[in-house]
Amino acid sequence: MELSKEASLSDLRAAINQALSAFIQEENLYLRSIGPELNPVADALERFLLDSGKRLRPLFAYVGYLGTGAEPSPEIIKAASALELIHVCALIHDDVMDGSDTRRGAPAIHKAFEQIHNDQNLLGSPEQFGISSAILLGDLALIWASKFLHQSGIEASAMLRALPLYDEMRVELMAGQYLDVYEQALASASVERSLRVARFKSGKYTIERPLHFGAALGSSAPAGYLEKYSAYGLPLGEAFQLRDDVLGVFGDSQETGKPAGDDLREGKRTVLMAITHDRASTAQRDVIKNLLGNQEITLEGVNTLRAIITETGALDELERTIEGLTNRALAAIHDPEIDVTAQKHLEDLVTIAIKRST
Amino acid sequence: MELSKEASLSDLRAAINQALSAFIQEENLYLRSIGPELNPVADALERFLLDSGKRLRPLFAYVGYLGTGAEPSPEIIKAASALELIHVCALIHDDVMDGSDTRRGAPAIHKAFEQIHNDQNLLGSPEQFGISSAILLGDLALIWASKFLHQSGIEASAMLRALPLYDEMRVELMAGQYLDVYEQALASASVERSLRVARFKSGKYTIERPLHFGAALGSSAPAGYLEKYSAYGLPLGEAFQLRDDVLGVFGDSQETGKPAGDDLREGKRTVLMAITHDRASTAQRDVIKNLLGNQEITLEGVNTLRAIITETGALDELERTIEGLTNRALAAIHDPEIDVTAQKHLEDLVTIAIKRST
Repeated sequence: MELSKEASLSDLRAAINQALSAFIQEENLYLRSIGPELNPVADALERFLLDSGKRLRPLFAYVGYLGTGAEPSPEIIKAASALELIHVCALIHDDVMDGSDTRRGAPAIHKAFEQIHNDQNLLGSPEQFGISSAILLGDLALIWASKFLHQSGIEASAMLRALPLYDEMRVELMAGQYLDVYEQALASASVERSLRVARFKSGKYTIERPLHFGAALGSSAPAGYLEKYSAYGLPLGEAFQLRDDVLGVFGDSQETGKPAGDDLREGKRTVLMAITHDRASTAQRDVIKNLLGNQEITLEGVNTLRAIITETGALDELERTIEGLTNRALAAIHDPEIDVTAQKHLEDLVTIAIKRST
Repeated sequence: MELSKEASLSDLRAAINQALSAFIQEENLYLRSIGPELNPVADALERFLLDSGKRLRPLFAYVGYLGTGAEPSPEIIKAASALELIHVCALIHDDVMDGSDTRRGAPAIHKAFEQIHNDQNLLGSPEQFGISSAILLGDLALIWASKFLHQSGIEASAMLRALPLYDEMRVELMAGQYLDVYEQALASASVERSLRVARFKSGKYTIERPLHFGAALGSSAPAGYLEKYSAYGLPLGEAFQLRDDVLGVFGDSQETGKPAGDDLREGKRTVLMAITHDRASTAQRDVIKNLLGNQEITLEGVNTLRAIITETGALDELERTIEGLTNRALAAIHDPEIDVTAQKHLEDLVTIAIKRST
């Protein structure tokens, strides 16, 4: 695919999708050549990867590259697309850790392989087989990400500049994921602690770090860009995660691909719930205690919690916070050293990152 | 540490241990700086990494490098040591997948974090917390492996030659792990199928691929070495895995750090069990069916199975196979293009890889 300087975000997304599709088809040929037992692995990973969405992380990486004034490049599209495979690993492992049974309206990977075990009447526990398969498919996606980056065809100097940032992003992601798991188990209701998790787990890894990675791909002296991109990426990353909190509670299940109020059922300790807890009356706190994290919660229970979140003013407070963060991000875009095409993309990406539906 | 051309395998192992220790202490400083919640992660990974053993994969990688005639190098020691962190990931995830509760005489990572959950009276399922933690610690080890390699300080050209082999090794490992999980669930008793799993899961990844990785680090034209190293590494890798099968059944639990006959309890579909099945009488097959994979198996049951494995002649057959494979590996060492110091190391490594205790 020819990439011009004028390519729109949706052109770029199409190029990313094409790169991902070509990569996984090649890799799957190899898996299938080992033996037909690996066909379900190949099928599941291909479906999971190509059946999604916004490609936010590759887009931020590519735009971060363009922002340095570097020329459009199909090799950089590949390197940037590698980040989507890290995300695939995070989602597959996350669903095991959360015990989340659906993803984008389809069974989560561990559930799909549990079903394969049942269908084939295999020995042992179907649940355990599902979990083992999901661990391995996630591992494979993480490895594929690096493989895609390594064989992208980018220049050696760009590769060597980008790898340290690539590693830092991945270490931060896993540290953030552990904080998240631990915070759920603590059942913390602290706004400050929830914010820290949101920053590490999702914010930095979705926006700031992909931009940094792109800057290192594009510039032989990326230090100045790292700072500029943080000024945009950190607040926007936080706003993105807060928007995700709202969608996890109020999102349309048709759009989120998850049951209505799924975060409430899972008892996620989000910033939204921490603010709600701060603002709630004793009676409201009792209701929250009973319903939050209750696997058997009904739609009525979900609506009761939603009403408390709204009535306490927590939702409004969160929306104001999102707006404030968004404005800080927007104010950081118009920097003369950031390429103007990239500036336009960064503006459009704000809208995509924090819009009110998925 | 100064490395001379005459460094013995145990000198090299000491250098590898020192490199691993310095790396993880640096990384753990970073983890601890995020927050004290990450202290258990840092502690557990450090203990797990430094509390082990043979460093077979780093040794094979370094010897593969020396074999090309390249000079001793502390940077290559670091690059080679990265392979140990891949192995840490494989072991941590493997223990979750096998439901294996001990590792080297200590609780497996998922059990250790289950205990942390209990000790701190956290909310939710301790078992789930243990599994989630183990998934993330394994992911982190896999990422650290690459980070260690990337920042080892080796030359850019060596890095770019080695990365494709590094990736191939990791993809093969995960494909092999899936085959293994699937084969257990099929309860296959086929010698041929068990051998294929052994080759992919352990043989290639323990010996052949580390040697290849080392060759790529050492030579700007490694193709010739890849072939030579396969002639040694493939048979020895298979022998290594078959020895592991024997130790899993007959090994001294004090030495293996696992309960006696642990593979029998887990119902592992090893080559040893497949040969036993082929040679067993109908009555013996009934006994195997009752006891193999029985979680409640007693020491008496373990001894009954051990007796069948011996009496059928399966153990003798396996030992002869190991001997034949070992001789093939030994015959491939004395090649004039392999550096003589490396030849000596390759000979010693045969003994270490297939010796009768751990």
